[in-house]
Amino acid sequence: MDFTDDLSKKITTRQAKVGVVGIGYVGSTIADATSSAGYTTIGFDIDKHKIAKINSQRKERLVATDNKKLISKCDIICICIPTPVNKDHTPNLEFLKNSLIEVAKYLRAGTLITIESSIAPGTTRNFVLPILQNSKLTVGHDFFLAFSPERIDPGNKIFKLKNIPKVVAGYDENSKRVASKFYSSFVDKVIPVSSLEIAEMTKVLENVFRFVNISLINELARYTKNLGIDIWEVIDAASTKPYGFLPHYPGPGIGGDCIPTLSYYLLDSAKKNNILLRIVNASAMVNEEQPKKVVNLALEILNGTVKKKDKNPQVLLVGVSYKPGTSDIRESVVLKIWKMLEARGFSVSYHDPYVSRVNGFSSHSLDPKFLASKDLVIITTAHKNIPYQKLVESKIPLIDTRNILQRIVSSNIFRL
Amino acid sequence: MDFTDDLSKKITTRQAKVGVVGIGYVGSTIADATSSAGYTTIGFDIDKHKIAKINSQRKERLVATDNKKLISKCDIICICIPTPVNKDHTPNLEFLKNSLIEVAKYLRAGTLITIESSIAPGTTRNFVLPILQNSKLTVGHDFFLAFSPERIDPGNKIFKLKNIPKVVAGYDENSKRVASKFYSSFVDKVIPVSSLEIAEMTKVLENVFRFVNISLINELARYTKNLGIDIWEVIDAASTKPYGFLPHYPGPGIGGDCIPTLSYYLLDSAKKNNILLRIVNASAMVNEEQPKKVVNLALEILNGTVKKKDKNPQVLLVGVSYKPGTSDIRESVVLKIWKMLEARGFSVSYHDPYVSRVNGFSSHSLDPKFLASKDLVIITTAHKNIPYQKLVESKIPLIDTRNILQRIVSSNIFRL
Repeated sequence: MDFTDDLSKKITTRQAKVGVVGIGYVGSTIADATSSAGYTTIGFDIDKHKIAKINSQRKERLVATDNKKLISKCDIICICIPTPVNKDHTPNLEFLKNSLIEVAKYLRAGTLITIESSIAPGTTRNFVLPILQNSKLTVGHDFFLAFSPERIDPGNKIFKLKNIPKVVAGYDENSKRVASKFYSSFVDKVIPVSSLEIAEMTKVLENVFRFVNISLINELARYTKNLGIDIWEVIDAASTKPYGFLPHYPGPGIGGDCIPTLSYYLLDSAKKNNILLRIVNASAMVNEEQPKKVVNLALEILNGTVKKKDKNPQVLLVGVSYKPGTSDIRESVVLKIWKMLEARGFSVSYHDPYVSRVNGFSSHSLDPKFLASKDLVIITTAHKNIPYQKLVESKIPLIDTRNILQRIVSSNIFRL
Repeated sequence: MDFTDDLSKKITTRQAKVGVVGIGYVGSTIADATSSAGYTTIGFDIDKHKIAKINSQRKERLVATDNKKLISKCDIICICIPTPVNKDHTPNLEFLKNSLIEVAKYLRAGTLITIESSIAPGTTRNFVLPILQNSKLTVGHDFFLAFSPERIDPGNKIFKLKNIPKVVAGYDENSKRVASKFYSSFVDKVIPVSSLEIAEMTKVLENVFRFVNISLINELARYTKNLGIDIWEVIDAASTKPYGFLPHYPGPGIGGDCIPTLSYYLLDSAKKNNILLRIVNASAMVNEEQPKKVVNLALEILNGTVKKKDKNPQVLLVGVSYKPGTSDIRESVVLKIWKMLEARGFSVSYHDPYVSRVNGFSSHSLDPKFLASKDLVIITTAHKNIPYQKLVESKIPLIDTRNILQRIVSSNIFRL
């Protein structure tokens, strides 16, 4: 392809214009990195809040817009569109599809398109590419196509975009070459792999590994609870093995946009290929049971201890984001627990220093009067900056789903 | 207990006599370490070969014997008896029981007994202790009882008994104290934990973690094979993720004395406690299917390619030990594959530089004439010192269950 040297030069000189389609957590991190690296970068989204947030930073070389026509100005387009699951756990590729239709409309010859969204193996070739070819441009001839899975870990202080090796695959050798060159300009290490499907499956493996292992420890926690064994001490002891072990911790269920979602994408793909994935299936079942365990424990504790029998039991959820130290509530299991509690007649409120509003509710401050009106507190996210001691001293029954009170012994603390 | 200071002093001065009951791989490693550390050590076994092997070393302070009466001379007794599974995968504690009956017969007051055998949580308290108390001595008063799971990894060049942290639990505080003191005298780091069951469960967790993760990668390998994706390249790419991932590799099934065995102990214990372990169960199913996959692939390949139709197909297994670089064939999956091949009418021979005899057969040298008589070669253990190039060049169909020929492309190589 004649465009290879041309685009390579534009990458070297930073004259290449970068478009990032979808400026959520992943997209905004990429846009931030490319603009810092010297590329004029345009972030595209339909969400005016996200656009305003980026533009309010007034960062050099970076603007956000909802004007799709500007896609035609870009030499490199990174697709960072969310790929969630439907209620029945089937893949929802609608957002991705709609974005690609727009990209195809404005696609110019010589452009590199890289997909960062999490998808099942084969999706770039069999789903993404046909939409892009509607542009009448031909991959490998008129444009480059790459897949490079995002590995960003929100809140991780050590590993960030720059120092997490980036797996890159291309539709053809030239696509791989220019995509690797592009990512190498703002990521320390690029790992080129031999096919789009290898790169897609790499991300699947990373996520399903966590999905199965967290589910496994939740499954084992049920067994050890029955035997009166503290699983947390067991995990700490096993973690002293210097090889062949990686600790995972129990909790109310796995949330976040990545781990369960991509595991369901895998299950869907395997089903379509008539392959039974027993272990991943079993893990999904265990994970789906986890929030029920929290609600059942809540019912068990409150059976007889509710202060005002004529009123709905009052429960306070401490933490709604899917992991500590972040405001991200995508696929947070806490929202599921919330719904299930309401369905069982609980009146739910929440406290989360990172999330000011959710479900039409505001985060409550933990003042003594407010606390005194609660029948039950459930610690659902292991945020660090919470006055846990105050919660324990309140003597209100307290379910600690994250074992953040590990070292505190008090009769009002219950564990899963 | 008055004996605590007494035994502590004997440990400090190395006057304590150590008895190691069961001098297989674990027991002989412990006996070697204690005698090197300065303790007079007696290894007990009923296997005359094992006794002769230890005594032939003429190591200072170390003798082996089948004379059980000498148990009464020991101040510290380490139980390193194998705990295998029966054919139906239920725990076989017969060897352990018989050894403990003998130990109880000769048990003296003031002795420390430590259990190193892999057992389900609760076994030390509910199975081991009652047998020992038949001695009419009382734990916590007349003798010390500890559980400290072995973590020895045969063939591991980096992590050996000395530098692998050792988890230690005691029946009571004094038992924990003297056992920790004893192990600290020949192991760099002792990790005391709060109960026998915590220590037992620690070993279970370590093993079931590997059992589930190897089964998971075997399960995913079926999916990726169907899609034409090389799982080995995927694992290598995923391994570049600097956190939250630990690579496991596909193979013909998990063998060895520890990983599958203890997983079945766990399943048995969970069943008795009416707890369904979906993920561990699913992993056991996947693992049991692996050798069948090897045999089915063998049948598929030979369908039509067998040289002499009037004769049984001739298959050569390369490697019978359960892991590379060792002669250990306990629970080796290769023995299962061997049996299954014979049941399907194959005539089986083997080559293994570490195992000179097995199943009444001797290891064959790989001379050209012998190779030429084979219809199929199956690489079953990833030993390093095998002339693999010769096997590939023989043009005989070759199943590489370990991907040891990863970089060799040849039309006679088949993968699982």
